[in-house]
Amino acid sequence: MTKKTVRLLMPQWQGGNNQHYSFGAELLAWLSPKNDQPLIEVPVKSFDGSPLENEDGMNGRAQLFEQMTATQHLLEAHKPDRVVILGGDCLVEQAPFSYLNEQYDGNLGVLWIDAHSDLVRFVGYDNGHTLPLGNLLGEGDKQFSSLVKTPIKPENVFIAGLATPSQEEESRITDEVEKAGVYPEEAEDDVISRLGLRTLNANELAESTGSIKKWIKENEIKHLAIHLDLDVLDPTSFRSLLFANPDEEYHFSAAGSIQRDRLVQIIKEVSEATEVVGLGITEHMPWDAINLKKMLEAFPILND
Amino acid sequence: MTKKTVRLLMPQWQGGNNQHYSFGAELLAWLSPKNDQPLIEVPVKSFDGSPLENEDGMNGRAQLFEQMTATQHLLEAHKPDRVVILGGDCLVEQAPFSYLNEQYDGNLGVLWIDAHSDLVRFVGYDNGHTLPLGNLLGEGDKQFSSLVKTPIKPENVFIAGLATPSQEEESRITDEVEKAGVYPEEAEDDVISRLGLRTLNANELAESTGSIKKWIKENEIKHLAIHLDLDVLDPTSFRSLLFANPDEEYHFSAAGSIQRDRLVQIIKEVSEATEVVGLGITEHMPWDAINLKKMLEAFPILND
Repeated sequence: MTKKTVRLLMPQWQGGNNQHYSFGAELLAWLSPKNDQPLIEVPVKSFDGSPLENEDGMNGRAQLFEQMTATQHLLEAHKPDRVVILGGDCLVEQAPFSYLNEQYDGNLGVLWIDAHSDLVRFVGYDNGHTLPLGNLLGEGDKQFSSLVKTPIKPENVFIAGLATPSQEEESRITDEVEKAGVYPEEAEDDVISRLGLRTLNANELAESTGSIKKWIKENEIKHLAIHLDLDVLDPTSFRSLLFANPDEEYHFSAAGSIQRDRLVQIIKEVSEATEVVGLGITEHMPWDAINLKKMLEAFPILND
Repeated sequence: MTKKTVRLLMPQWQGGNNQHYSFGAELLAWLSPKNDQPLIEVPVKSFDGSPLENEDGMNGRAQLFEQMTATQHLLEAHKPDRVVILGGDCLVEQAPFSYLNEQYDGNLGVLWIDAHSDLVRFVGYDNGHTLPLGNLLGEGDKQFSSLVKTPIKPENVFIAGLATPSQEEESRITDEVEKAGVYPEEAEDDVISRLGLRTLNANELAESTGSIKKWIKENEIKHLAIHLDLDVLDPTSFRSLLFANPDEEYHFSAAGSIQRDRLVQIIKEVSEATEVVGLGITEHMPWDAINLKKMLEAFPILND
């Protein structure tokens, strides 16, 4: 029987508290290869000009919660076997990955390709997109993890592509983060070792997918969901990233270093090693397109 | 009576001998503000994988000629009062500007906002997009200028934004150009002074539009067409330009230096000084979108 694949357009921006994530999702959908996969749009409250409320340590908590439950309902309505998620901030992954874990009897494997581990809350940077993997593991935010009926098994999680900042970069980030009063509620490394999560840093991932394939085999991962945060890419070769804003200096974050061709190769190799039933593409921030759109909106002849 | 404005989607790539100009045009159309202006697509032969033939010193001459006459026919069919051109390489401007000059009794003013003057042929770089302004003035390429029934009056032309390379940049470009055996058939400066064309370099344009407004007044420009080559922008603040390919070094060209806000301001000021009846936006080369599209086309789950 043919598997049913749907595309979920998820223009969620509240998880990163940046309206442009919505536009990034729409452009991602426009760029995706045309085929018969239905495109299902999740209703997302547009940015209306007023700042998000910080509710119990999360900006836009109520909107995010509503959008997450809406995603669950849409997936239950369509009952796909496979889901492509076009985001949006990283938190868009939670509902579809949780749905897929139910579909595959709690045995879903999750490959989290990201410069950051997305496991814990950052006090002082109260944005939900630091938490999706934590929530999926039954940790993270209490209210949000309560939506995950069956948490992903820790041994079924592999985090790959973690940024390895240079010493200089590290100290710059630490300074900026301290100045802003941002700190993780629990050290990410502690969570990783407490749960025994597999990881590869960006350099290791660039070299080989051997350990990912080994993990797939040893843990008998038959169905895999891949999270792709585009921030894993080298921002000099792919510039449509939050931290590659041409009008601002980098801050708060270490840059990714994976090359585009290598990323494609990784996804292909993993897709050959097991059945990929989910792929989420997130944090697309197309600065040039955003800026060009603004210019076009300001040219009188295009608006008469 | 309300003026009729149409948008001409002109995914022409042959004039720059680079297939990606087509995609740049399509993305430009997608980014344009939605309103009632009809979008008319000019039929353009897609890149089929084989290199363009160099015909009498121009790559893809026959295709370009055919597309130019097709544009003329479409304009004659729709008879708009105003035209927005969404390019495509710079040569897309010729047919609509020539049409507009007929509409306005040979008195059309042309503001050519570009890092390059687009006046002459470059031997060794046989691409038609170095020639549109030359052709419109009844100079340039014989076959192409023959399509311009009434040449634009030289006193009605203003070139603004010419790149002013640093000495270091200048010598690098000269070296590269000499190594490649590229040379202009006639010095651009000579053409400018022979025809008495007004010019502003990028620094002057960044400072004031005073001399443009003066020119509009003195020459009684009642109807103005604006050509905008996006290469006039500072490539560190807008990176969707031919010469800002993340995978290649800059070459053969001086970088633009105008900031985005300033460009918008310039177009607005000019639009207040006279009636803008044409605006062409050209040479959009959205590297990130091109590269992301390629990645999405390679991810197995999006293509099953």
